[in-house]
Amino acid sequence: MKFIEKLVNISRKNNSLLCVGLDTDLEKIPKFLLKDFDPIFSFNKKIIESTSDLVCAYKPNIAFYEAYGSKGWEALKKTCEIVPKEIPIIMDAKRGDIGNTARMYAKAIFENLGADAVTVNPYMGEDAISPFLEYENKCALILCLTSNKSAQDFQLSLLKIPPFGLSPQGRRPEAGIDGKPLYQIVAEKVLGWNKKRNCGLVVGATYPEQLKKVREIAKSLPILIPGVGAQSGELESTVKFGTDEKGELAIINSSRAIIYASPKEDFAEAAREEALKLRDKINLYRQIWDGNSPKL
Amino acid sequence: MKFIEKLVNISRKNNSLLCVGLDTDLEKIPKFLLKDFDPIFSFNKKIIESTSDLVCAYKPNIAFYEAYGSKGWEALKKTCEIVPKEIPIIMDAKRGDIGNTARMYAKAIFENLGADAVTVNPYMGEDAISPFLEYENKCALILCLTSNKSAQDFQLSLLKIPPFGLSPQGRRPEAGIDGKPLYQIVAEKVLGWNKKRNCGLVVGATYPEQLKKVREIAKSLPILIPGVGAQSGELESTVKFGTDEKGELAIINSSRAIIYASPKEDFAEAAREEALKLRDKINLYRQIWDGNSPKL
Repeated sequence: MKFIEKLVNISRKNNSLLCVGLDTDLEKIPKFLLKDFDPIFSFNKKIIESTSDLVCAYKPNIAFYEAYGSKGWEALKKTCEIVPKEIPIIMDAKRGDIGNTARMYAKAIFENLGADAVTVNPYMGEDAISPFLEYENKCALILCLTSNKSAQDFQLSLLKIPPFGLSPQGRRPEAGIDGKPLYQIVAEKVLGWNKKRNCGLVVGATYPEQLKKVREIAKSLPILIPGVGAQSGELESTVKFGTDEKGELAIINSSRAIIYASPKEDFAEAAREEALKLRDKINLYRQIWDGNSPKL
Repeated sequence: MKFIEKLVNISRKNNSLLCVGLDTDLEKIPKFLLKDFDPIFSFNKKIIESTSDLVCAYKPNIAFYEAYGSKGWEALKKTCEIVPKEIPIIMDAKRGDIGNTARMYAKAIFENLGADAVTVNPYMGEDAISPFLEYENKCALILCLTSNKSAQDFQLSLLKIPPFGLSPQGRRPEAGIDGKPLYQIVAEKVLGWNKKRNCGLVVGATYPEQLKKVREIAKSLPILIPGVGAQSGELESTVKFGTDEKGELAIINSSRAIIYASPKEDFAEAAREEALKLRDKINLYRQIWDGNSPKL
């Protein structure tokens, strides 16, 4: 089954566009867990058990596991193994390297860890992405416009007509008098890479106008949207602009606001409560902005 | 001691600009090693022992280790531990993520693995790089123009004046009538991030003209140059354009052509021979293009 189908299936079953980010940090999990043999895994297990009927995906952030070396990697692998098979795992790894190396990263993430999707960085261009796309039923979510402030350093820079490459329609991408921002060129390129329907994009909730633009360009691609939750405020526009015409294919991520909702014994219940609240809030906006309303 | 000092010291002691890339692949190392408890480590150990007087750095490619999960990570860690202390370890990881996550990657690479430098991806902008720069004596080598063909997808795209941010001189970066390519804007930005003298750049040997341009912009930054060796041919221009005015600060990497020079029992001796040949060839060009010759 294709990633996009798996995503839509669980999204409908759980009536949810919510992705829970597993940025599990030994310094932030409840203290009483630290006596466990593998506190990171113990924490994740409880979080997953208490939220698995509310989410459309889990997104472990691989950096948090690598920081603990091989032990962290084991905790991550065990975590991936207990995620219910119908729920996609998005490995937030932001990898990007040339062919041979990208193949090794794909092997690590899709085969060793068994993830369904991975975030990848487009800076090095198509040949750094294509090894991930050889896995037909997996998905590469390509960074387009990230949620951080410094996204402005390069991603919002205006490009003149790129010197090489054609648009998906076989034409050179058009550039207006003022040029086009880099993130739009990336979104257009990704359309051309999506021959096996296994590409997606990453756009931060902190740039709602640009999210709207990306959804116009990439009508049927899944879009992973970080930046709500801890940084909230943009949820309505995230739902309005991030979903496709059926009100689907937006993967709205929240990490810290959910998993660290309580520092105490009740952390899993507290996480469930926050997840439920956010899922339902998202669904409320989906109703307002559903197919019958003027979406844009 | 700063990374750049450690680099220059060993570079002078070993009279070498050669970096040996440890892209260690179970499918490519000599078959007889596979019976060892940790074949990857056994292979690396022999390679390091036979080349450590010929190099200015080692560059393990982290993807090759992650592909084998926690066991691969252990092999990498053990490898880092046996590199002689005077030789810098450059972790080729091409990481890039927002603040909190970048901090975890920095912890993984600088603390858990004990590397001296790391390759990082600039797409997400300054706040994805700065956590690495908090380590004063480590180094972040920022992708500028990579050696692969698809580097042309975005890195060579012409930018109009970027909408945000000032140049290191406090001015908006200038853009000519035709704009400036992205890789140049990246190089200029990095100059501004180099307040603790712990930044460097990555430029592929496959783009000699652009390497010349980057060295003009970044006169005193270390430049990691992959793409010679297996892809060779550009060695003379790499040395000519990549070194600083003293003929130093170029870190010229070769991986496969050295470590897989022989598939047999003599692999370590064969690697030494190749490393010696390449180091000396580089030094020959350094003499031709030394301070007394017209360098450009």
